[in-house]
Amino acid sequence: MKNEVEDAYAQVIKTVVIEDNFWSNFKKVVAEEVIPYQWKALNDQLLGTEPSHAIENFRIAAGESNGTYYGTVFQDSDVAKWLETVAYSLADHPNSELERKADEVISLLGRAQGEDGYLNTYYTLKEPQHRWTNLRDNHELYCAGHLIEAGVAYFETTNKRKLLDIVCKFANLIDSVFGPEPNKIQGYPGHEEIELALIRLFDVTRQQRYLQLAQYFINQRGKNPFYFDDEKERRAKLDTIPSWNDEHVNFGLGYEYQQAHQPVREQKSAVGHAVRAVYLYTAMADLAAKMNDQSLIETCEVLWDDVTKHKMYITAGIGSNVNGESFTSNHDLPNDTMYCETCASVGLVFWANRMLRVDTNSKYADVLERAIYNGTISGMDLDGKKFFYVNPLEVNKYQSKRADQEHVKSRRQTWFSCACCPPNLARMIASIQQNIYTQQNDTIHTHLYIAGEMTTTVAGQVVTLNQEHHYPWNGQIAVDVKLEQTEVFTLSFRIPGWCSEAVVRVNGKAVDVAAYIRKGYIYIEREWRLGDRITLDFAMPVERVSSHPLVSMNVGKVALQRGPIVYCLEETDNGENLAAITLSSKVEFTAAYEKELLGGVVTLNGTAQRIDPKQWQDQLYITGELSLVTCKVKAIPYYAWSNRQKGEMIVWINR
Amino acid sequence: MKNEVEDAYAQVIKTVVIEDNFWSNFKKVVAEEVIPYQWKALNDQLLGTEPSHAIENFRIAAGESNGTYYGTVFQDSDVAKWLETVAYSLADHPNSELERKADEVISLLGRAQGEDGYLNTYYTLKEPQHRWTNLRDNHELYCAGHLIEAGVAYFETTNKRKLLDIVCKFANLIDSVFGPEPNKIQGYPGHEEIELALIRLFDVTRQQRYLQLAQYFINQRGKNPFYFDDEKERRAKLDTIPSWNDEHVNFGLGYEYQQAHQPVREQKSAVGHAVRAVYLYTAMADLAAKMNDQSLIETCEVLWDDVTKHKMYITAGIGSNVNGESFTSNHDLPNDTMYCETCASVGLVFWANRMLRVDTNSKYADVLERAIYNGTISGMDLDGKKFFYVNPLEVNKYQSKRADQEHVKSRRQTWFSCACCPPNLARMIASIQQNIYTQQNDTIHTHLYIAGEMTTTVAGQVVTLNQEHHYPWNGQIAVDVKLEQTEVFTLSFRIPGWCSEAVVRVNGKAVDVAAYIRKGYIYIEREWRLGDRITLDFAMPVERVSSHPLVSMNVGKVALQRGPIVYCLEETDNGENLAAITLSSKVEFTAAYEKELLGGVVTLNGTAQRIDPKQWQDQLYITGELSLVTCKVKAIPYYAWSNRQKGEMIVWINR
Repeated sequence: MKNEVEDAYAQVIKTVVIEDNFWSNFKKVVAEEVIPYQWKALNDQLLGTEPSHAIENFRIAAGESNGTYYGTVFQDSDVAKWLETVAYSLADHPNSELERKADEVISLLGRAQGEDGYLNTYYTLKEPQHRWTNLRDNHELYCAGHLIEAGVAYFETTNKRKLLDIVCKFANLIDSVFGPEPNKIQGYPGHEEIELALIRLFDVTRQQRYLQLAQYFINQRGKNPFYFDDEKERRAKLDTIPSWNDEHVNFGLGYEYQQAHQPVREQKSAVGHAVRAVYLYTAMADLAAKMNDQSLIETCEVLWDDVTKHKMYITAGIGSNVNGESFTSNHDLPNDTMYCETCASVGLVFWANRMLRVDTNSKYADVLERAIYNGTISGMDLDGKKFFYVNPLEVNKYQSKRADQEHVKSRRQTWFSCACCPPNLARMIASIQQNIYTQQNDTIHTHLYIAGEMTTTVAGQVVTLNQEHHYPWNGQIAVDVKLEQTEVFTLSFRIPGWCSEAVVRVNGKAVDVAAYIRKGYIYIEREWRLGDRITLDFAMPVERVSSHPLVSMNVGKVALQRGPIVYCLEETDNGENLAAITLSSKVEFTAAYEKELLGGVVTLNGTAQRIDPKQWQDQLYITGELSLVTCKVKAIPYYAWSNRQKGEMIVWINR
Repeated sequence: MKNEVEDAYAQVIKTVVIEDNFWSNFKKVVAEEVIPYQWKALNDQLLGTEPSHAIENFRIAAGESNGTYYGTVFQDSDVAKWLETVAYSLADHPNSELERKADEVISLLGRAQGEDGYLNTYYTLKEPQHRWTNLRDNHELYCAGHLIEAGVAYFETTNKRKLLDIVCKFANLIDSVFGPEPNKIQGYPGHEEIELALIRLFDVTRQQRYLQLAQYFINQRGKNPFYFDDEKERRAKLDTIPSWNDEHVNFGLGYEYQQAHQPVREQKSAVGHAVRAVYLYTAMADLAAKMNDQSLIETCEVLWDDVTKHKMYITAGIGSNVNGESFTSNHDLPNDTMYCETCASVGLVFWANRMLRVDTNSKYADVLERAIYNGTISGMDLDGKKFFYVNPLEVNKYQSKRADQEHVKSRRQTWFSCACCPPNLARMIASIQQNIYTQQNDTIHTHLYIAGEMTTTVAGQVVTLNQEHHYPWNGQIAVDVKLEQTEVFTLSFRIPGWCSEAVVRVNGKAVDVAAYIRKGYIYIEREWRLGDRITLDFAMPVERVSSHPLVSMNVGKVALQRGPIVYCLEETDNGENLAAITLSSKVEFTAAYEKELLGGVVTLNGTAQRIDPKQWQDQLYITGELSLVTCKVKAIPYYAWSNRQKGEMIVWINR
């Protein structure tokens, strides 16, 4: 049931079947490798990795196993994210065996759930008497949020209600516990997540209470007096287990760490833990659109610009500091000590997705695209079995001896004790189709170029769009329109920000792009009929990207980008001491599709120059002009780095 | 009493009176500001700084005051370093009031000393029963070393024996406790220092036992089984106070932290805590020369090359990592997160000083000079009242929000709870004349160009050399020779490594430098007579220095150097965003002496270019060629940075 406010904003079109040379493979890897692999992880069946114990915790909570709780306070969320991934994956990779397993897990969750609806194995098993006493640190509402997201997804793709009912029951309990009424807790989560989940729950149930509870959590956040202060005082009188955050509270960042330092509408700068931040902003944007809340929309826009104009790596990595996994100051984007958690870029995708509902502006889709092709999928090996938590833009020889780079790994790892990233990336890939199209009344917006078929209803008619292309390796896109009867409506297509030369044709006839472009989208309104074909030719030269000079670490350097793909140099292709390679503006690159390399990628190949170390003889410092020697240089897509021999890697190359 | 072995090596000439436009001022600041200021610090008379309590600890130990021990385990060493500084300073700034104070402190030390000679207030007051139970962490022998150095210096400059007697008594006790005999402890200090001090004590007392004890500590170090392992086991059975190093032992660096991971002769790479390392190497070099120990000499040479060819900043800063204040891997020289402790560069000066006794090779004096004009004196404000512990080569806008730069300060501080650096720098300045000349038989080597008069005896005759110049601002040096009768001997002068064009004349007549140069020194043997004048003209153009390309952080950058002085850019002269300034090879600099600026310095002034941020409009990343705008650029000596407005600073400038 749509209402007027919702008509003012775009809706995501979810009926999309992907058949894409790039994403179909990633989805296949998720279906065939990641999901079974993570299932083993959740069940402690992986050798040589940290045990997860996540399923076992639920068994114990259900009274079906002995033993004690094990894992982080948010261990439940790994199961939830796995279920959510399974839900999406079943839509395009039906698998009755997997679905049966998922159903069993859902049953287990039901049996582990309290009669009152409560469902959190950490508190149920470790501190049943201390529910809701440490919202600041203990991820209770965060885990609830992930369970809710799983319930929504499983219902959407399988039409099965069981998990949805479980999470509604839990959400109802939470709604009875939190709120402005004097008998309720006036708190909000330390790690945001439940807000965006409750809005998704509203989307499928249309129950206003979930939307209102999300709104309450968002509006309550950061108000003075601070809830976490009061909570801490109350907790001091209880015999609670010390938390991970008790000692060096919030990493010295104060409540900025949780974006709870001031009311959200007063926040003009993205601060604190990057994943928390973007989860909050995702919910804010979604809520703002649902409520037509202009001040919240403005806040989201200000924060978006702050992140993307001051705090985002070229890979769409965010969170430049390991301390608190946090944002720091504007333009502070170190390449070797950064954090760039996979989850943070995944969260940026979610946020961009919501911003595209608020406003069809290519600045959101450009970042979304930057994230999905670079800083998110870099978090996983091509075979789906190893993962990065942290995504560096430079790996150097010093790494192994530098304490400030201890968190940076040059090889992906099999599993983490804090295993948030692998399932988060998996669910993003499995649901990638939810980012391609939105619809606002009779206009269909195409944000991403991912091949396959989309179906929706426009003016009462079923309309199908089919994308065909070899994106992101090739910028020639064909879109075929199918509908029974002719109908007037509008198709809009994003002209990517990286493209300076776009030719758009309808049935071979050029459209005047400059005349019909609005906020980065070309709008084509006409009487569409079966067999109409739109072609979009996006020129894809190799671009040299320069950072704003306030990003001091990148001055004098360029990054290579072709289409949406950011490139890097690896030692295995270019020899050691990658820093010695210099790319004068004269170096020309040839883009070549290499089918057998890294699952099939376009590489960039050119003749560059290298500073000749010989002239130093055996010294550290010399004076005078430097001599250069000619060398071959080969760049590969950043996301595919560290899939071959171990070694140095750089994104930013000396000019 | 010299022996044959000693004749094979050079001896430091200490009878030097400095009258130098550069160093006389630094010495005056030490005499008039630093010494009184540190006296106040030691007596807790400074407002708004951490109390020292160092003198009070001795009073309590002497039974003349109540109260309890306060401070680090090495608090005594601050008093020792102050006394050592006073000793040197009295030689050129006689001050009876100060000498009286020093004598009183020395009396106090005598009263605090145990009957057996023991003198350490931490153990005497806190754990009298646990002497020598934690050599690894508790700096007991380190403090003894500093006391010994003070005793030696005070005797050398005042001819008073009281402190020398005190420290001899203590050294005798230590000698009775440590050694290879079964009834002695087969240990060695966690923080080296006593080794070099014992050799100095041997120099003035000629007692072999001190030299042998130093040799024992050096040879015993790093042997397997490891002494610190055994000590830890024994300590576990005692009720000792936990140490600062118990929790995260040795910063995860193992015994490399203390250079105790293998016997010193097997050490080929400088590792661990940088100050400890260079103190050890200083002693090793001195011992090697005294003992004509070739394998130890070779080890020193290998370690010297390792440090100066792989691990030394252009400022002579060493120790690039805050974790353990340590060396890391080769070429890892970050400019903004480094450590570069003032004490480490001071220690490098001591080591270079000893290497010059082993071998008259300008590679040692070049580094010594680099250190004294750059990375050491940068540790002090020009007025001698504020100090840096850490000497960054870049201060950027991100600093305040970056946990990995927390240790880096952009302003010097008044005092530290761990106050090792200020008195260490003060004693280096006060004794700077000990680095200018060495003598080996009938050859006098001049290593540094510091104006003033040196007196020594050559072939039975008193010879005086008098340097006159405006070094380091001007490379024209005049050296006048005085002696009663003519005599044949050799004068050697270092041709600085930074100088590519040197003209040397004797009484106006040019000497063929190329013909008479050996290991960077020009040797002039002739019959010298009263009134002979040697002139050395060292061309001093502005040089652009480039780092070896393995130092990845400096590729594409140059540093400016003129003579021995390394330059930097400060925001106050050049505006913000110093990284945007680019120096093409065409930029010419004018060197100008500015008498009123920063106590009188040569500044470098040129016209450079700046990346124009306008072309980014409001974006973080753009493609295409960059436009540049012309700008003035002014560089000041690095050592004088942070004496005006707070702001950015860089040494390495984009090309």
